[in-house]
Amino acid sequence: MATEESRETELMQKVVSLCKRRGFVFQSSEIYGGLRSAYDYGPMGAELKRNLMSEWWRFMVHSREDVVGIDASIIMHPDVWKASGHLANFSDPLVDCKVCGERFRADKAPKLAAGSEAPITLSDKGRAKATQEKLAGQQIELRRDGTSLHGAKAGDAGYVCPNCGSPFLSDERRFNLMFRTTLGPVDPIGDIVGLVRGAIAEGADDKQLRARVEAAMASSSVYLRPETAQAMFVQFMNVQQSQGIKVPFGIAQMGKSFRNEVTAEHFIFRSCEFEQMECEYFCPPGEGPKYLEYWKEQRLRWWQGIGLRPDNLRFRAHDADELAHYSDGCFDVEYQFPWGWDELEGIASRTDYDLKAHTAGSGKKLTYFDPEATDPATGKQGWHYVPHVVEPAAGATRGVLAVLCDAYAEEPGDADGKGARTVLRLHPRLAPIKAAILPLVKRDGMPEIARRIADQFFAAGINAKYDEQHAIGKRYARHDEIGTPYCLTVDTQTLTDDTVTIRHRDDRRQERIKVQEAVDVVLRALRA
Amino acid sequence: MATEESRETELMQKVVSLCKRRGFVFQSSEIYGGLRSAYDYGPMGAELKRNLMSEWWRFMVHSREDVVGIDASIIMHPDVWKASGHLANFSDPLVDCKVCGERFRADKAPKLAAGSEAPITLSDKGRAKATQEKLAGQQIELRRDGTSLHGAKAGDAGYVCPNCGSPFLSDERRFNLMFRTTLGPVDPIGDIVGLVRGAIAEGADDKQLRARVEAAMASSSVYLRPETAQAMFVQFMNVQQSQGIKVPFGIAQMGKSFRNEVTAEHFIFRSCEFEQMECEYFCPPGEGPKYLEYWKEQRLRWWQGIGLRPDNLRFRAHDADELAHYSDGCFDVEYQFPWGWDELEGIASRTDYDLKAHTAGSGKKLTYFDPEATDPATGKQGWHYVPHVVEPAAGATRGVLAVLCDAYAEEPGDADGKGARTVLRLHPRLAPIKAAILPLVKRDGMPEIARRIADQFFAAGINAKYDEQHAIGKRYARHDEIGTPYCLTVDTQTLTDDTVTIRHRDDRRQERIKVQEAVDVVLRALRA
Repeated sequence: MATEESRETELMQKVVSLCKRRGFVFQSSEIYGGLRSAYDYGPMGAELKRNLMSEWWRFMVHSREDVVGIDASIIMHPDVWKASGHLANFSDPLVDCKVCGERFRADKAPKLAAGSEAPITLSDKGRAKATQEKLAGQQIELRRDGTSLHGAKAGDAGYVCPNCGSPFLSDERRFNLMFRTTLGPVDPIGDIVGLVRGAIAEGADDKQLRARVEAAMASSSVYLRPETAQAMFVQFMNVQQSQGIKVPFGIAQMGKSFRNEVTAEHFIFRSCEFEQMECEYFCPPGEGPKYLEYWKEQRLRWWQGIGLRPDNLRFRAHDADELAHYSDGCFDVEYQFPWGWDELEGIASRTDYDLKAHTAGSGKKLTYFDPEATDPATGKQGWHYVPHVVEPAAGATRGVLAVLCDAYAEEPGDADGKGARTVLRLHPRLAPIKAAILPLVKRDGMPEIARRIADQFFAAGINAKYDEQHAIGKRYARHDEIGTPYCLTVDTQTLTDDTVTIRHRDDRRQERIKVQEAVDVVLRALRA
Repeated sequence: MATEESRETELMQKVVSLCKRRGFVFQSSEIYGGLRSAYDYGPMGAELKRNLMSEWWRFMVHSREDVVGIDASIIMHPDVWKASGHLANFSDPLVDCKVCGERFRADKAPKLAAGSEAPITLSDKGRAKATQEKLAGQQIELRRDGTSLHGAKAGDAGYVCPNCGSPFLSDERRFNLMFRTTLGPVDPIGDIVGLVRGAIAEGADDKQLRARVEAAMASSSVYLRPETAQAMFVQFMNVQQSQGIKVPFGIAQMGKSFRNEVTAEHFIFRSCEFEQMECEYFCPPGEGPKYLEYWKEQRLRWWQGIGLRPDNLRFRAHDADELAHYSDGCFDVEYQFPWGWDELEGIASRTDYDLKAHTAGSGKKLTYFDPEATDPATGKQGWHYVPHVVEPAAGATRGVLAVLCDAYAEEPGDADGKGARTVLRLHPRLAPIKAAILPLVKRDGMPEIARRIADQFFAAGINAKYDEQHAIGKRYARHDEIGTPYCLTVDTQTLTDDTVTIRHRDDRRQERIKVQEAVDVVLRALRA
C-alpha cells in the first residue's frame, strides 16, 4: 500500500513538474508567493485546455442538430441563486479548533468514537505546556507527555481537529461556497460601519447586528456563479423561441465557475476557479431515464475519443442517499487518477426541478408547447408541459489533468539508458502543437524552407511551430515532452528532392514524405 | 443634428432587437428583471464571439513565431494589484446629491461655471415643495416655480447633479472599480461586526473604524481582474524560460475582465463583465516606438481583415495629458459606432514600467539576458536588461458590437417592397453558421440527403446547420438575418444529378454545384 501510494504521488509530482518546466501550468501569481489553489495555464496548457474544450463544443454543439450553445455572464441576478437553492444550501459545515485555531470542514475531519480518548499534539513543548495551563484554567485537567496532551475525550459529533487532534471545538456553522461581491457604486464597508454603530447604540446583540448587516448588503450583493448550469434554465425560453428549436433539445455552455473551496486539492483537480462544460438536455416528461442512458453512452464515448484509456474510465451510480430528492438517477464518469478513482463528469436526470424552481422564483412560465403531441391528462392533441432535463456536466480543468496523467509516459531506453525519454502521448487533436517544423541546421537555406512549410500549416489553420534552437535530438525531446505528434525535419536531401522526414512521436518512426503532402498527412491524422 | 442622432439610435435599437430575436445577445437573468449591464450570448452570439476571438488567437498566436498564449486565473494575488497601481488608482470620483440622493461620477456630470445659477428640477410639485422647505430649514432660500427651484448657485467644482441639477453635493470620494471578494473560509461580516463593536467600545471615530475594518479585511480580500494584462508581466519569467523564447516576443491572453462601472452604456459596449484580447510584446530598451508603429499597422489590418469597413476605422493619438507618465506613445483604434467614434483597442508603448513595478512589488527579478547583444553601458557583449513593452489591448465584447453594427443592412426591395430584407453581412469566418443545408421539402428523401451533406461539413470541422422548418423563403430570410453566408438547397433535381443550389447571402445569387464539391466551395471562402 505504501509503495502503491508513493508511486501515485511520484506520478503526480512528475506531471506537476513537467507542467511547470514545459509551460503547461504555473502557480498563479507565483512571484508573489502564489495564491491558494489558483493556477495559470502557460503557452502549452492554454492550447491543451482550448483544444479539449473545442472538442467538447464540436461534439456537443456543432456536430448535432439538437444542441445549441450559449455563453452567459458569470455574475447573474442574485435571485437566480435563491431560486436554485445555492444561497441556502451550497455550503460546507465549518468548525474552529479552540486549541490551535485551525478552521476545518466537519465532514472531512478525522472521526473518533464519541467519548474515546482524543490525544492532542502541539508543534512544540512550550505550546503544549501553555495549552495544558490554559485548559486547566477552564477546569480541564490533561496530562502532558512532551508535545502531547492526554485525557481529553471526543465529543458527541465524534470528530476532532485535523491539525492538533483537539476535541475542543466551536459549534458547526454553514459556510457558503459562493464568492460574494458587490455590484454598483456602493461602499459596503462604509455602510456596514455606519449600520453597526447605529445598531449598537440601540443595544442590538451580535446576532441582531449580523442580521441587519446581511439585510443591508442583500440589495447590492451578487455572486460569482458556482456552476454554469443555471443560465441554461434561466434563458430556456429565449433560446427555445429565438432558435425555434423543438424538444428534445439541449443548451450547452462552457466557461469559468468559482467555488470558495475549504479544501482545494490535487493540483488543478479541485481549485477555487475552474472551468466546466455543461449541457442541459430538455425532454418530454417521463423520458429522463431514457436520455440518461443515452447521454451516459455518448459521454463515455467522448472521453475515450479524446484518448483516455478505457481501463481508466468507469461509471459510478449515485446511491439513493447521495441522490437529490428530485433526481431520478445520477451517474459519475470517473477517471482513475494517481490518487484513485475520482469524478470527471456527472450525468444526472433532474426531472423538472430546475425549470419549476425558476418559475417559482421569477413568476415567469418556463414551458413548452408541442402541437403534435397528445396531452396525457386530456387525451387531446397539443401538449403544454414543463420539460424534464438530463444534465451531462463535465469538468474541463480536471479533464485536462486526466489527459495529462493518461498521456504521461517514461521510456527507459536501452541497457545504458540510451534513448530514454519522457513523452506525452496526447491525442493529436489535443496536442498543443500539431507539427514542429525543424531545419536540421541554421544554414544552407534550411530555415527558409522550414518557415515556408510552417506557413502552409498556418494557412490550413493548423497550429505548427517553427523551431531552430539547439541540436535536433534536443528538439525532438522537447517536442516529445509537450506531446507534438509530428516533427518534420528539413535536411540536406530536402534541398535536392523536396522531401522532409516526418518523425512520429509515439514510436519515433521516421519516414520521408513530399513537402507538398505534409499538410495533408497531418490533417488526416487530426481527423482520424 | 437631431435626425442624425435619431438615425443612430434607430440603428442601435434595430441591432439590439435583432440580437434578442435571433439569439445573439439576451439581457442576463432577464426573467428576474435583468441585471445591470450584464448580458448573455445566445446560440448565435456565442458562436460569433467565439469566432472573433479565435481569429484573434490565430492571427496573434498561431500564425506567428514570436507570440505565445497564456490563460491565467481571474482571481490573482492581491499584491499584483497593489504593484500595478490598480488598488490605489483604478477609481472614479463619486459624489452623492443631497437633494435627490443620486450617486454619480463627478467627471461625467454636467458642468456649470462656478457661481452661476443652478436650477433644480424635481419629479413633481410635492417633492419640489418638500425640498424647498427642507433647504429653507438649512438657511437656503429658493424660489419655486412648479417642479423647479431657483436661486441655487453652482459651487467651485462647477458640476451639478445629473438627475435634478442640484449643486448641493457630498464631497468627492474615490470609488475603486475592482470587484472585491473574499478567498478562504473566512466570515467577513462576522469579523467586521466583532471588530466594529470592539473599536466603538474604545471610542474610535468613523475614520478610525473604517481603517481598522479595511486592515482586517486586507488579508482575505481578493479582486476580480480588471484587465487580463497583468498576468503576462507576473508570469514573464515562467513563460520566457519554459518556452526558451527570445526577445522580442509577446505573450497573449483572451478572457473575461470585470469592472464595477458606475456608468455602463451602449448595450454590450461598456458592461461590468466583458472580454478582452490583450498582448504584451516585449522588446529591447529603446525599441518601443518602433514596435508601436509595427503593432498599429498589424492591428488595423486585423480589424479590417475581419470585415470592418476601412471608413469606419481610424487611429486617435493620445494627447500628452492623457498619456500615463511612463508611456512614450499610445493610440486608440476607434470604430465609428452609431453614437460616434469610440475605442475598440488601445495600443500603448509602456516602456519598462510594468516589469519594474512587479519587481518592486515582489522582490523578484524580471529581466532578460541576451548573450549576443552589446551592453550599451559597458560596451561588452552580453546584455542584461528589463524589456520594454508594447501592448495592443483589444475589446472582444465591443468588437462583437462593432461587427454587428458594421454588418447590419436593410434592403428595401422593389417598388412594392418585394424582396425587402434584413441581412447581416458578416465575414464568413465570423458567421455563426457557415452553411445552412436545406431540403426544399420534407419528403422524397430530401431530408436524408441534406443530413448527409451536413455530416460532411461537420467532418470537415465546419459549423453547418440542417434546417427543415418553414417554407424555403422564410428559411433564407432567417439565415440572412443571422449572417449565414451560404444556403445549400436540396431539391428535385438533386435526386437525379447530385447537384444542389448554393445561394450567396450578399447578392442572393444562386448557382448549382455538385454535392461533392460543396464542402470545398465553403472551405475556400472561409480561407479567403
